[in-house]
Amino acid sequence: MRLALIGAGRIGKVHARAIDEHPEVTLAAVADFHAPAAEALAAEYGARTLDADTVFEDDEIDAVLIASSTPTHADYLERAARAGKAVLCEKPIALDLARTVEALRVLESHPVTCALGFNRRHDPQFAALKRAVMEGRIGNLETLTIISRDPAPPPTEYIGASGGIFRDMTIHDFDMARWLLNEPIAEVHAEGSCLIDPGIGAAGDVDTAMVTLITNSGRLCHISNSRRACYGYDQRIEAFGSAGMLQAQNESDTRLRFTGEPGQVEGKPKWFFLERYAEAYRHEIDDFVDAWKQQRAPLAGADDGLQALRLAEAAERSRHEGRRITLDEID
Amino acid sequence: MRLALIGAGRIGKVHARAIDEHPEVTLAAVADFHAPAAEALAAEYGARTLDADTVFEDDEIDAVLIASSTPTHADYLERAARAGKAVLCEKPIALDLARTVEALRVLESHPVTCALGFNRRHDPQFAALKRAVMEGRIGNLETLTIISRDPAPPPTEYIGASGGIFRDMTIHDFDMARWLLNEPIAEVHAEGSCLIDPGIGAAGDVDTAMVTLITNSGRLCHISNSRRACYGYDQRIEAFGSAGMLQAQNESDTRLRFTGEPGQVEGKPKWFFLERYAEAYRHEIDDFVDAWKQQRAPLAGADDGLQALRLAEAAERSRHEGRRITLDEID
Amino acid sequence: MRLALIGAGRIGKVHARAIDEHPEVTLAAVADFHAPAAEALAAEYGARTLDADTVFEDDEIDAVLIASSTPTHADYLERAARAGKAVLCEKPIALDLARTVEALRVLESHPVTCALGFNRRHDPQFAALKRAVMEGRIGNLETLTIISRDPAPPPTEYIGASGGIFRDMTIHDFDMARWLLNEPIAEVHAEGSCLIDPGIGAAGDVDTAMVTLITNSGRLCHISNSRRACYGYDQRIEAFGSAGMLQAQNESDTRLRFTGEPGQVEGKPKWFFLERYAEAYRHEIDDFVDAWKQQRAPLAGADDGLQALRLAEAAERSRHEGRRITLDEID
Amino acid sequence: MRLALIGAGRIGKVHARAIDEHPEVTLAAVADFHAPAAEALAAEYGARTLDADTVFEDDEIDAVLIASSTPTHADYLERAARAGKAVLCEKPIALDLARTVEALRVLESHPVTCALGFNRRHDPQFAALKRAVMEGRIGNLETLTIISRDPAPPPTEYIGASGGIFRDMTIHDFDMARWLLNEPIAEVHAEGSCLIDPGIGAAGDVDTAMVTLITNSGRLCHISNSRRACYGYDQRIEAFGSAGMLQAQNESDTRLRFTGEPGQVEGKPKWFFLERYAEAYRHEIDDFVDAWKQQRAPLAGADDGLQALRLAEAAERSRHEGRRITLDEID
Repeated sequence: MRLALIGAGRIGKVHARAIDEHPEVTLAAVADFHAPAAEALAAEYGARTLDADTVFEDDEIDAVLIASSTPTHADYLERAARAGKAVLCEKPIALDLARTVEALRVLESHPVTCALGFNRRHDPQFAALKRAVMEGRIGNLETLTIISRDPAPPPTEYIGASGGIFRDMTIHDFDMARWLLNEPIAEVHAEGSCLIDPGIGAAGDVDTAMVTLITNSGRLCHISNSRRACYGYDQRIEAFGSAGMLQAQNESDTRLRFTGEPGQVEGKPKWFFLERYAEAYRHEIDDFVDAWKQQRAPLAGADDGLQALRLAEAAERSRHEGRRITLDEID
Repeated sequence: MRLALIGAGRIGKVHARAIDEHPEVTLAAVADFHAPAAEALAAEYGARTLDADTVFEDDEIDAVLIASSTPTHADYLERAARAGKAVLCEKPIALDLARTVEALRVLESHPVTCALGFNRRHDPQFAALKRAVMEGRIGNLETLTIISRDPAPPPTEYIGASGGIFRDMTIHDFDMARWLLNEPIAEVHAEGSCLIDPGIGAAGDVDTAMVTLITNSGRLCHISNSRRACYGYDQRIEAFGSAGMLQAQNESDTRLRFTGEPGQVEGKPKWFFLERYAEAYRHEIDDFVDAWKQQRAPLAGADDGLQALRLAEAAERSRHEGRRITLDEID
Repeated sequence: MRLALIGAGRIGKVHARAIDEHPEVTLAAVADFHAPAAEALAAEYGARTLDADTVFEDDEIDAVLIASSTPTHADYLERAARAGKAVLCEKPIALDLARTVEALRVLESHPVTCALGFNRRHDPQFAALKRAVMEGRIGNLETLTIISRDPAPPPTEYIGASGGIFRDMTIHDFDMARWLLNEPIAEVHAEGSCLIDPGIGAAGDVDTAMVTLITNSGRLCHISNSRRACYGYDQRIEAFGSAGMLQAQNESDTRLRFTGEPGQVEGKPKWFFLERYAEAYRHEIDDFVDAWKQQRAPLAGADDGLQALRLAEAAERSRHEGRRITLDEID
Repeated sequence: MRLALIGAGRIGKVHARAIDEHPEVTLAAVADFHAPAAEALAAEYGARTLDADTVFEDDEIDAVLIASSTPTHADYLERAARAGKAVLCEKPIALDLARTVEALRVLESHPVTCALGFNRRHDPQFAALKRAVMEGRIGNLETLTIISRDPAPPPTEYIGASGGIFRDMTIHDFDMARWLLNEPIAEVHAEGSCLIDPGIGAAGDVDTAMVTLITNSGRLCHISNSRRACYGYDQRIEAFGSAGMLQAQNESDTRLRFTGEPGQVEGKPKWFFLERYAEAYRHEIDDFVDAWKQQRAPLAGADDGLQALRLAEAAERSRHEGRRITLDEID
């Protein structure tokens, strides 16, 4: 697979490295609005630079990885589909539902392998949890608890364009919830506060949130978010069922333990997503390439992006209206 | 302190043992509607049996521990107060607010040492967590997560008289939340499902519940309940703040670990409250006796019972109405 | 059982409390060379004081617990046996083999219930480990690793009279090894250094030691001792076999965990034997009373004291001679 | 660095992959006695095949990695040195001291960058432990405990040519002990049994061993080995000192925990060295390349191989003679 990468920023670099390590993918081209960034990354991996506009017409390109800024995603996704190229698009497709639905229509009429960057599904620990749930290890799944905290809040400027905590951060948790609960979510209730950075509150957003999801069959899911955990990236999931409980725990750099003052001490959780999900990014590429080869659906696709966004919309509305929102209200 | 115990059932026996081990309290008398139960327990500890009606007139009795059935609590509490006896009353004072408020008025006009049986405040691990939070170990407390699951659901007959999961089970978690959050709770949102025992649903109750509490300053608290955890009594609390996180973990009988098939295995959590809170029951008696001697307020008093009940009322209403309830609506 | 306690020092007090909590034993009398100590302890539990010499002639006494200083043990043990009284004797019977053997001969000719204070056999965690080994949980036991470290070294004056680290401290580990290996130990190798307190070295002893034991069938056991662990009482055992491994881990006051600076922190191990083995001391009394009632052998008896002492002798000799000592050489 | 790999077996493949991932090394050539093996590996990474004999004369080769069978190591090492090529040699240089000393002499007269394959020094967890010890985290290091167990014994045929457990398996632990104790080891005592596979005993070897090392200053080190741990590769180190303890714990594939029957279960340790030390092999190449570029000594060199072998010799002799061996006796 000859792949073109659009976007040479932080997340683009993560993907470039994963692509480089993959035996069946060649990083053929890099495009970035900011030319020097594209050049530097292209040079590092022996790729060409391309203009984002020409990528889609290039016959030597089989697939496009969209890691550019959010407002460009939907447009690039549609162009890739129309050009018949496989596409791995960073989430979200768009911050609003209408634009997302539009992109999905284009994909429907121009079917290509389309994967969405919900990287957590590819994390070995969460994948093992999913597998164990599906195998019935905990019997009937009854409640799910997702704790997801970033190490530090983004700059206040970022908040304004982010779409708010539910569309920007909780979106990953909504996807994990959907994936693990494995049935439609019927209702959403959300609460939030601004406890960390008053600038976030001034921008109309919250930095601390709690969401409750209720599935069709009555399963309950709790999501707890914070924009700042001083000890690092806090990424835990607990699945509880009739036959037991599964807990995905935080990961540290080493298992080295010190005993003395001030007690029995192990290392802090990994600092952020680059460290915590390094392996997930590799598996994401694996899955994308394999889906393309086998002509099967990737683990997370465009519709998953739409469904997670609907949950974010419902959460936002619930927080404002102080009531349980049924998903039927969101369209 | 010469103490009379009213109620010789399961919880009465737990208290009798804790009283017996305490150097400053004598179990002077035992009363129970069912005479043989009172006689057996009295014999075990060398106490007299008394009729519950005469306990309050007995000059040899300094204090009364009310461990009889819930509908009798408020009445006995008032009689103890009027008789000028110290009283340790099992929770709840009553299942409805009006009756509880009435009992509190009697206590106001007849002030005695009055402790309420919120045993978890006396658990060494939760007490250490509270102390650490108060000492600023985690900076500003922002979110609290309480997971509380019983090993097995009560008989369906019990459900009808229980007042429902929020008044019967979550009440303990509401008290822990109030105690740890250390500021008034402003709003409540609750959801619930019947996933374990259809009989519970038929009785109009749920067996699985999730509650969100919001304090005046915007702190968020999540409570997760289940009437059945196949692995035992699941009692965990996580306090998250600006400078870190504190987690009270489950306790097992031993720290013995096996490694082999099927992995690295440690024991299950303790089975139920008798095992898990054995030490808490002892500390509860300590606190009660000390409060009586020092003429100070015990760690949990009648008003704590009222406030927890108001949260339960709000939760029940929220679950039915599908909206966030402000505490001002509850009176 | 009406029991007389000889010795009202630190360990005597531990036993007094365990006796007091036991429903079937009455602390009838306390004797101590230092009269005020006996009087204080007797007063606390409503017991008489007695002269150690008259204890054995007192018909109201069924059993004697010897918790006086080491040089008096053998003599009191023999007098108890001759008087037909059950006896629970703190370890060691004596610091030399000849005196120990003599005492055992008296016990042979005057058989009474005789328990030796190897308290660790009564620890719930070690007992669970033993049970699991006996039930075949790890298949054939092949190696045993015992780590045993005191929180702080004793005063140098104590060292001189202690008989050295192997007779004084490792003796407990020798007993655990014998109990868990469950077959005769054939050979001993020991090494030691003085790394903590030069005063200990000056007294001819070591403060840090490692011992290897080899059983008849070739099982290997490692014992690691230190007279000082700054973090508390380090008491761990690892049993390794063909089907897995069992590890008895240190115990802390709570399972409370803090995450923040400097990492994920749990409490230090319990400080010393009073805290760590509080429950073991209670079970020791249980076993003694039950053995007396059932006329069965207690969990640890006089011969176990002799055999542990032989291992200590062998270790001492091995350290000095720099060679593997066979137990046949010790008599 | 253009590197030639001699040996295309299991360990050769591990190195090939690590080399391939390294940005500054090119796998230029592969040699193997068994030509098809060399060809397959060379093809996988786009390298040439070479005859082992011509490798050393090839001007296009900067460095040689010796991963062929043990009897060839010393010879290839000398030829690499004489040819002025950097060399990374799998341990051991040879199974006997004389041959090893001879090779070291050649290295002395033909100084090249020479690294020895003590991969464990490059493990992130052990490296963190070393760093913490050197930074004084535990004060003065007093005792070291190394537990090292393979998942399954090698075929009996292998045992004969292995040099015995101390030269073949414990050699890694001897190196870790030397590295962490950071001072000369003065004395060795070793014991061993054949408990797992009678064929190993028939070959004159043991499958279960315990070694005690004593350093010049009296520090004590315990090594425990088993050729079979049914639960996987058991690789733990505990460093104990005046200010605390450090423990390197086993690593599992995930931190996923299940609670239910039969308890609280986490995954088994990683199965064997390929999994457990995958990262160490990458760091080993890093260190080798960097040492070559900086003209500095690599983390482990030829003399470390000699010193570890001397400890193995001493252990073997101690086991046979039943006495403490001083290193001065080994030359």
